[in-house]
Amino acid sequence: MQVPLPPSLQTLLEVLQRLPGIGPRSALRIAQAILKKPDLLHRMIEVLYDVQQQIRTCSSCGFWTEGEGLCAICSDPNRTEAALCVVKDASDVLAIEKSQAFRGHYHVLGGVLDPLSGVGEKDLRFTQLWERVRTGAYEEVILALGTSPEAETTAYYIARQLADWHGRVTRFASGIPVGSDLEYVDPLTLSRSLRERQPLSI
Amino acid sequence: MQVPLPPSLQTLLEVLQRLPGIGPRSALRIAQAILKKPDLLHRMIEVLYDVQQQIRTCSSCGFWTEGEGLCAICSDPNRTEAALCVVKDASDVLAIEKSQAFRGHYHVLGGVLDPLSGVGEKDLRFTQLWERVRTGAYEEVILALGTSPEAETTAYYIARQLADWHGRVTRFASGIPVGSDLEYVDPLTLSRSLRERQPLSI
Repeated sequence: MQVPLPPSLQTLLEVLQRLPGIGPRSALRIAQAILKKPDLLHRMIEVLYDVQQQIRTCSSCGFWTEGEGLCAICSDPNRTEAALCVVKDASDVLAIEKSQAFRGHYHVLGGVLDPLSGVGEKDLRFTQLWERVRTGAYEEVILALGTSPEAETTAYYIARQLADWHGRVTRFASGIPVGSDLEYVDPLTLSRSLRERQPLSI
Repeated sequence: MQVPLPPSLQTLLEVLQRLPGIGPRSALRIAQAILKKPDLLHRMIEVLYDVQQQIRTCSSCGFWTEGEGLCAICSDPNRTEAALCVVKDASDVLAIEKSQAFRGHYHVLGGVLDPLSGVGEKDLRFTQLWERVRTGAYEEVILALGTSPEAETTAYYIARQLADWHGRVTRFASGIPVGSDLEYVDPLTLSRSLRERQPLSI
């Protein structure tokens, strides 16, 4: 493109395209919206600066928090210490919280083991995990790392490391999504659903 | 959602959703990417601040520029003053520039007349347009405002205002997009293509 865009605008377009799901066209649309509304631009700068200054990860679980002390989940006295749910990213905490199905604590690993991408044990929050499991009152560690090969490897790694721990290590069930018709479910999921079939209690 | 997100992060999600094409899910994905990469967050703040400080609209045509004087297009001595192309937004200038089909000057109106949304003559760059047309060396004003009813009204308004001007007032042809099959073109476009059919010169 030969168009002589002002340099700062050109740079904005490049930086916007580093965001997930933003291509050249949406970058331009966003830049235009920002340029049309000076108050939106001002607000963007302000809120990004706030986030930069204030957001940190909870020293215990790794979820997002701000201010002093533990995060809102770790410091909630109404949550049970019976189970510790291990997830990949802070956004997984949000997803599980939305389901309102879990009232225990979380541990954000920060990723899964992926040697090909250079992610090893040292890059994830394993030390803190062993520490929490061995010193806490947890009776169960629930793995919710996803179903990719790397996630499965990481799950088995954690289970092995906790082999001599007194509690249970479980993982989220994998199977047919609620509301799906069998014909639209992939063969791998189907075979796993069959293998891990559950007794029907009446 | 009951999830206790830190306030600054909650605000970031709200502000991101004011951008075009960004819904709750993409806002969360973007926020997460920004939180994972401190250098990206830093760069975002930096470049938005640069844009806020430096980008302004060219006093002549209304296109984006920075620094002193006219924009890169207005100050380009290789561009002809034979024609002035009137567009709605600065991004329309980019679209036409990409086609490399026009080497004249532009005039960004900043919108089209839309009384229902409260956009009247005073809100658009009409005064500058009349001034440029009457004092410049232009022989033609080409309207490229789009095909919405409001755009058509605006086009007719401009044509009426320039009725006593010596030059020609034209508008971009409307018709079948290049590469489209007739069967996929809507009836309105087809009827207009027929009405505005062109002689085939051999």
